[in-house]
Amino acid sequence: MSNEEPEVYEKTARSTVNRYRPRAKYDHETIHGIIDSSLVLHVSFNPTSIDEDPFPTILPMLGCTGSYTADGAEETSATAIYLHGHIASRFMKLPNSPSVHDQALPGVPVCVAATHVDGIILAITPFNHSCNYRSAVIHGYATLVEDPGEKMYALKLMTDNIVPERWDNSRVPPTEAEMKSTGVIRVDIVSASAKIRAAPPGSDKTDVADEETRKRVWTGSVPTHIKYGTPVPAGENVKAEVPNYITNWISEENSKGEIYSRKIVS
Amino acid sequence: MSNEEPEVYEKTARSTVNRYRPRAKYDHETIHGIIDSSLVLHVSFNPTSIDEDPFPTILPMLGCTGSYTADGAEETSATAIYLHGHIASRFMKLPNSPSVHDQALPGVPVCVAATHVDGIILAITPFNHSCNYRSAVIHGYATLVEDPGEKMYALKLMTDNIVPERWDNSRVPPTEAEMKSTGVIRVDIVSASAKIRAAPPGSDKTDVADEETRKRVWTGSVPTHIKYGTPVPAGENVKAEVPNYITNWISEENSKGEIYSRKIVS
Repeated sequence: MSNEEPEVYEKTARSTVNRYRPRAKYDHETIHGIIDSSLVLHVSFNPTSIDEDPFPTILPMLGCTGSYTADGAEETSATAIYLHGHIASRFMKLPNSPSVHDQALPGVPVCVAATHVDGIILAITPFNHSCNYRSAVIHGYATLVEDPGEKMYALKLMTDNIVPERWDNSRVPPTEAEMKSTGVIRVDIVSASAKIRAAPPGSDKTDVADEETRKRVWTGSVPTHIKYGTPVPAGENVKAEVPNYITNWISEENSKGEIYSRKIVS
Repeated sequence: MSNEEPEVYEKTARSTVNRYRPRAKYDHETIHGIIDSSLVLHVSFNPTSIDEDPFPTILPMLGCTGSYTADGAEETSATAIYLHGHIASRFMKLPNSPSVHDQALPGVPVCVAATHVDGIILAITPFNHSCNYRSAVIHGYATLVEDPGEKMYALKLMTDNIVPERWDNSRVPPTEAEMKSTGVIRVDIVSASAKIRAAPPGSDKTDVADEETRKRVWTGSVPTHIKYGTPVPAGENVKAEVPNYITNWISEENSKGEIYSRKIVS
């Protein structure tokens, strides 16, 4: 499919980036990549249970993009974000709250954001200080996944999205009690955009022309990435060696993060 | 003031943690510490400009807690979160949007979240997989800072919150044009809570009793922290050496992150 046009999300008033437009991206690959490589997602929604409370709220959650088909057929691109949590949590109860149905919406309107900070940018003046980052913001309707096949698909997807191959290398399938107490939410994506800054500092010409200030102010970038440390075995662990799928995942993540954060400022 | 009771946020229906209650914290020190050490904040609000749009939105922003007094008197604890952005951005225009005043609210109702991921927790079964994390969620009213003294205070605070001493070691004060095009928002905190997981994996007794599975499944923790890399000078930089306040900041952040993420699982 490499000769096809890349799939993109339609620009809407909600999703169009207004500031620094060249930093904006709307293609599925970029947006899904930012979400799936993010260790945590921030999910925002308006609580319905607290009467007249004007505040939206944010929960940090784990999840990733996916696309389920009952017959196992492969889709060209993900169409949803899966999230999970305990069935008794406030968020998991939302899709069945009356106010959602009152409004005749196809689910709870939510926003999901993922952000990687790739470096600190130190320019001559604080005004030009910045960060390198990759951020994705998605809007969609959240519903509770009821289909047992889809629920199992999503749990495996989310587990392996954090550590590849972990599902098959753990005690599976989940017990009936485990499945019952785990809630899976699917956010059907309605609109989405990404914004990326990946560059060294930029300073104004007048500041660069000021030799005295330049002698005094160090300017440059400090790359940042998530460092995965040496694994620490649990008390109950009896395997003498950390398996290859774990050590490979750690070294790949570390080198990816280190190389990217440095490359964009060099 | 060390012999006084720690200051805490009152528990409200909005802020009370319902799941895993022992993980919850309500004291200022913990909550402000999580926000101020976070490289990025996620800010959620309901757009007022897009008619009848049901979706809240999230923006990744930079900021920190602070407390401004015109006479420079020190407060015992921060009372607000300061955020900044370009004056023309959508978020900066919100406090002056008509709908805020229609509702007679003291500002735009927003939620600010900060999350650190401190490790990946691999238990015997995916159900018991988890993350170590420190997260803070704050609700408050956002208004635009108009007072020039407070605006300058906030800009210095936010700059030095990322790199200590950077403000005085850069070209300051900002020009009039720079001040005009930078917007500062103050979020007066209404309610807040934090949630922390800082422990090795926990597995169910029946899984631990299953010797065959334990021989097959590696269990343990992979600590994670933000790694600050070697500084990369900008093309315009003429200072031969990276100043001490930068190298000290980098090594302190790195050792703090590495030590904490490892300690909690050892």
